[in-house]
Amino acid sequence: MITKNQVKYIQSLGQKKWRDSEHVFIAEGPKLVNELLTAANCKIIQLYALKEWIDQIKPGGEVIEVTIDELQKISQLSTPNQVVAIAKKITWESEAVLEGNISLALDEIQDPGNMGTIIRLADWFGVKNIFCSMNCADSYNPKVVQASMGSITRIRIEYNDLPMWLKKNNGLSVYASVLNGDDVTKMEKINEGILIIGNESKGISDQVLRLANARITIPRRGKAESLNAAVATGIILSHLI
Amino acid sequence: MITKNQVKYIQSLGQKKWRDSEHVFIAEGPKLVNELLTAANCKIIQLYALKEWIDQIKPGGEVIEVTIDELQKISQLSTPNQVVAIAKKITWESEAVLEGNISLALDEIQDPGNMGTIIRLADWFGVKNIFCSMNCADSYNPKVVQASMGSITRIRIEYNDLPMWLKKNNGLSVYASVLNGDDVTKMEKINEGILIIGNESKGISDQVLRLANARITIPRRGKAESLNAAVATGIILSHLI
Repeated sequence: MITKNQVKYIQSLGQKKWRDSEHVFIAEGPKLVNELLTAANCKIIQLYALKEWIDQIKPGGEVIEVTIDELQKISQLSTPNQVVAIAKKITWESEAVLEGNISLALDEIQDPGNMGTIIRLADWFGVKNIFCSMNCADSYNPKVVQASMGSITRIRIEYNDLPMWLKKNNGLSVYASVLNGDDVTKMEKINEGILIIGNESKGISDQVLRLANARITIPRRGKAESLNAAVATGIILSHLI
Repeated sequence: MITKNQVKYIQSLGQKKWRDSEHVFIAEGPKLVNELLTAANCKIIQLYALKEWIDQIKPGGEVIEVTIDELQKISQLSTPNQVVAIAKKITWESEAVLEGNISLALDEIQDPGNMGTIIRLADWFGVKNIFCSMNCADSYNPKVVQASMGSITRIRIEYNDLPMWLKKNNGLSVYASVLNGDDVTKMEKINEGILIIGNESKGISDQVLRLANARITIPRRGKAESLNAAVATGIILSHLI
């Protein structure tokens, strides 16, 4: 049983301002919620779930049994999937370590699906940190959380004034993904540095691009004007690492 | 000015059965529509556009001037963008040529965004043909068309019984993207063959996988369980080609 106020509260968490003021986010579906339940740096506050999920998982903490109709009301998905969790935003005990790691810097990645996919592929390639410009999609947007498939608990994501942040880290090599740079398939592998990915239609802003040491490109053989930002990130990481 | 019947007709084209019976599809936005207008194998039947677009482009054929409110009614996008086109499905004068080319075979790629992104990246890498299992997303789904960014006019897309089709083409090397195959970053480049990409949660079906000569994998360094299907396709193509 779920109250009107609870429905209203959960729906409000679809908006960034409420997630920020409450310092929480929503995650849905058994696979994602199970990952959050076992992640050491994620604290689930409330679970709204169908009886079958509760009986199977037997989670601790506050669990509210809901009907399919109630789940529909609080779900952000077109097809609700057994459980909705409200969790505290992920916390990290120590500072980000850039030395000896490859980090991503995202300049105005606005599509939540792209953002989530990039978080997930960072996790595939062992990238530990993603630094986002302030105008990137919010990493706790429900669509980002769903597309990241639990990788948000393993990847540190920070929002900064990107040019300022890059200036502060100017000891590291900074690679910019552009349309007219060096062929990434012919570059030497690296084990440290920052890879900048730009907005899909506008690319990397001049202000940010100026701070890169190297410009790299995925060679094109056909006629498409550009590659999807997440696809480009995956291809570059697979060649650089 | 647009009539109620026209609105109803255009809205109906969001559904596959009406696109199939009418043999048409919808495309939106100046960039995509301009690409279709210049593609030799695409015939636009009707354009519904704002005055500003008509004045700037001066397209031939049937053009209906609409207001922003009217455009909103017929658009499939959350933010309508100047023009909606109804076009005949793309036609090809000759048969698909597999020899000397790399082709993609998609086994149950259901997400329209993934499908469109794969079409676009095929076009980036010079892949000419995509063969889809019957349960893939429809390549004329408006979301696929938008995500493909005009590449649908350059890539031949066919739907077949995939196991049957693979058996018919057993003279070519068939590579399957799986989680436990040979490291794709260490393989020799190829200039001919078929690359199979499977459904994101289920992977490639047994029936299809059995028909592959080689199993290839993108090495994982982190903890994500899987990669997005479009990202995986892009990474594999960038290493194979």
